[in-house]
Amino acid sequence: MKAGIIGGTGKMGQLFVPVFTRAGYEVMVSGRSTTLTDEDLARQCDIVIVSVPIRTTVRVINRIAPLMRPGQILCDFTSLKVKPIEAMLKSAADVIGLHPMFGPTVSSLRNQTIIVCPARVDDAALQKLVAVFRAEGARCTIATPEEHDRMMAVVQGLTHFVTLCMAESIRRLGVDIGTTQEFTSPVYQIELSLIGRLLSQDPGLYADILEENPYVPEVLAACQESAADLSAIVNNHDAAGFRAFFEENSRHLGSYCQKGQRTTDDLINCMVKK
Amino acid sequence: MKAGIIGGTGKMGQLFVPVFTRAGYEVMVSGRSTTLTDEDLARQCDIVIVSVPIRTTVRVINRIAPLMRPGQILCDFTSLKVKPIEAMLKSAADVIGLHPMFGPTVSSLRNQTIIVCPARVDDAALQKLVAVFRAEGARCTIATPEEHDRMMAVVQGLTHFVTLCMAESIRRLGVDIGTTQEFTSPVYQIELSLIGRLLSQDPGLYADILEENPYVPEVLAACQESAADLSAIVNNHDAAGFRAFFEENSRHLGSYCQKGQRTTDDLINCMVKK
Repeated sequence: MKAGIIGGTGKMGQLFVPVFTRAGYEVMVSGRSTTLTDEDLARQCDIVIVSVPIRTTVRVINRIAPLMRPGQILCDFTSLKVKPIEAMLKSAADVIGLHPMFGPTVSSLRNQTIIVCPARVDDAALQKLVAVFRAEGARCTIATPEEHDRMMAVVQGLTHFVTLCMAESIRRLGVDIGTTQEFTSPVYQIELSLIGRLLSQDPGLYADILEENPYVPEVLAACQESAADLSAIVNNHDAAGFRAFFEENSRHLGSYCQKGQRTTDDLINCMVKK
Repeated sequence: MKAGIIGGTGKMGQLFVPVFTRAGYEVMVSGRSTTLTDEDLARQCDIVIVSVPIRTTVRVINRIAPLMRPGQILCDFTSLKVKPIEAMLKSAADVIGLHPMFGPTVSSLRNQTIIVCPARVDDAALQKLVAVFRAEGARCTIATPEEHDRMMAVVQGLTHFVTLCMAESIRRLGVDIGTTQEFTSPVYQIELSLIGRLLSQDPGLYADILEENPYVPEVLAACQESAADLSAIVNNHDAAGFRAFFEENSRHLGSYCQKGQRTTDDLINCMVKK
């Protein structure tokens, strides 16, 4: 069996080459620097994975889809699922959308999540692909493309938005990052590290995740309304209003409050031991 | 030498009892459940530390300050420094404001920050107190009360505000926390854990940190303006605007970008190994 990764010379593609090799596949990669073309790879491989930036994904799919035959499986790795899957379904191949929920710097797939959107595929072929990831310790969540994109508007969209707003606020206030280090708490240290992680990556990826997901605008609206309401509570020195706001969220989070306390205690210990 | 902790039966007070014991002090504590009164403690100890909730700190200080004499040192542990120090300066004692930048669940003071605001004290007495914390591995940052409160509006105020807004947005969107776990990224997992950590603590503490710090409103205003501007960029699908916004912050963060990438890689590895 042959697995081919288009964009397999990129960091994310490279992470998955040994994964398929260990599962017994012959792995082929194509990219801007390879002699193997995307088209040749698409014709030859049993599983074809498109691992290119979001904005070029549909263009690459449109180019290779006509070459693919029934029995082959066509997948993509992007952070959106509705549009790439629509494009992949125009091929004659089976179609499975994939979204690895991690960056290429993870040390293994262990305990990492991959979202799997089976669009047109029989169960045996689906299970065979999922088994490749599970063998590496990954958790595979099956979802529809709409479920995926809706959840990503929160899990990625809200998280990235809030992280960027925090960075922008610090910058606008004219606060020097180095000085904040002398006044740091472990929680601020973690938040600043998450800001640094995001800002050391490709702006295009984050623009796409926020701007191309149709469910993001309503999430950002909810965030701005939350900020306006909490800000009013704080500016009015409304201690009762603050307590109500706090406790409503504490109830909604439920058992994840205590879980968060334990997890962050571990993270803080991990960080201060460095 | 005697060190006394008012509110020393609370979690934060308890954390510091062995710290002073190891430094060779005889340690006394008073609290609502002790037979020793705050007043007796204040009369007897060379160093007196007020470790009570923010909103009661000034009241407790006002009660014990008249009992204290020159040569004694009066300190507090609260998250604000301007007002408690003003109150402490009405005593005849030397005055040092302290702010341990961590919660009582840390496993040691190693690599933790304590902000030290020497208000009226000679250098020898100051260095002697600072040595107690440094001996435990803590980093002591010397600052004026105003510098402290201004930095806390960012390090604590902005961080807590943004964390609470994220929780509130998820709740308002009607998103189930358990479901997000099936779609999680490591970064979302860390953010959710930080939300849980905050929401599992006392709302009164967070209300005080946000509502009692006079520099917080301008920080919240900067945050809301940042959110409005970034939201407009995203909703307009403005890829160039997004890139400019992103890169301006990336430049402001400078070397903390790469540092954040490394730190969060470590944190993610620490988390997935659990």
